[in-house]
Amino acid sequence: MDADPGFDAAVVDLLGMMACAELLAFERLAHDAALAPTIADKAELARMAVAEFNHFTVLREHLMKIGADPTAAMEPFVEPLAEFHQRTAASNWLEGLVKAYVGDGLAADFYREIGGFLDPATRDLVEEVLADTGHSGFAVSHVRAAIEADPRVAGPLALWGRRLMGEALTQAQRVAGERDALVSLLVGGSIDFRQLGEMLARLTAAHSARMAALGLEA
Amino acid sequence: MDADPGFDAAVVDLLGMMACAELLAFERLAHDAALAPTIADKAELARMAVAEFNHFTVLREHLMKIGADPTAAMEPFVEPLAEFHQRTAASNWLEGLVKAYVGDGLAADFYREIGGFLDPATRDLVEEVLADTGHSGFAVSHVRAAIEADPRVAGPLALWGRRLMGEALTQAQRVAGERDALVSLLVGGSIDFRQLGEMLARLTAAHSARMAALGLEA
Repeated sequence: MDADPGFDAAVVDLLGMMACAELLAFERLAHDAALAPTIADKAELARMAVAEFNHFTVLREHLMKIGADPTAAMEPFVEPLAEFHQRTAASNWLEGLVKAYVGDGLAADFYREIGGFLDPATRDLVEEVLADTGHSGFAVSHVRAAIEADPRVAGPLALWGRRLMGEALTQAQRVAGERDALVSLLVGGSIDFRQLGEMLARLTAAHSARMAALGLEA
Repeated sequence: MDADPGFDAAVVDLLGMMACAELLAFERLAHDAALAPTIADKAELARMAVAEFNHFTVLREHLMKIGADPTAAMEPFVEPLAEFHQRTAASNWLEGLVKAYVGDGLAADFYREIGGFLDPATRDLVEEVLADTGHSGFAVSHVRAAIEADPRVAGPLALWGRRLMGEALTQAQRVAGERDALVSLLVGGSIDFRQLGEMLARLTAAHSARMAALGLEA
């Protein structure tokens, strides 16, 4: 590990957060599989859930390799992530697909932003874990087909996408308020509001692009 | 495949039923992972869910290898299996553990009974898929510890175990009424009530042994 204990703590925080997120993503995708209209869709969602779990095990093993306790590393993020999922529980199949696509994309962008401040080995690990598990194409094609079949579903789904973004920001602020090491890594000791603003603008633009890909207004 | 079309149909039925059961077991374990009291328990349940999904893919691949459509093979069993899970949705962590242990054990015994009538290749596949994924030891140790900590949980869990057995038999009868090939395989053309009775006695005895292992009255 690095000689800087603040940096080490930030890496453990980041990997712990990602491990926790992957495990909860597994749960959510498995839950969405239960909502799937066909057994083939169910199997496909389950396959994606398993891919998330495999990412989780990669992160857990890396945490152990750098001498961290994976459970302790994940613990601080269980509450905020579980609250995010609870506040944005998909009530139907399409909401689940939009959430998976928009939520995973947002999380991936955020991790990549942090990745820019990391050592190359950790950055490679983050990239490996963020590799698309095939969910994007699946969600985009299913949501677009549903809107084509019935254009009235687009309005509620667009609102849903906005709500997801809002809840994600709420929980991100909560985490930022509690995890000093992580925030220090991101903003380099003193908060640079211009940089933070630019990052938020990039995240928002990418979110809008994803909504457009689904055929929804951001 | 075998030259007997009735036998072939029964094999497809059996593997389709098992594939469907594994996929739904994946869903149920993933759902139970969400009820887990600690992040470590959550990860362990998720690992077991993934093991069930891997069994599902083994069965699906074998179905394709013998020229069957996996989705079509699973379809007839979606309803009865989903109904079983719906009627026996675990309302807490311990109910989920008892259900997984008792339900999987019962299903495994049943598949092994059918396995006795199969060709060696299919029988080997069934054995491979039924290999314990580590759930038994996990469920037994957690349920016994919970009863030791608070003996009052034993009574409701014993009732729960009996209800699981009752619902399983209800759905088994339903499947038997609809899948002639499978029933023919099991009873050899004409129903031998003595043989059926003996099989039921064996299943019930094994169920009681599992309940005892959990520290519960059958």
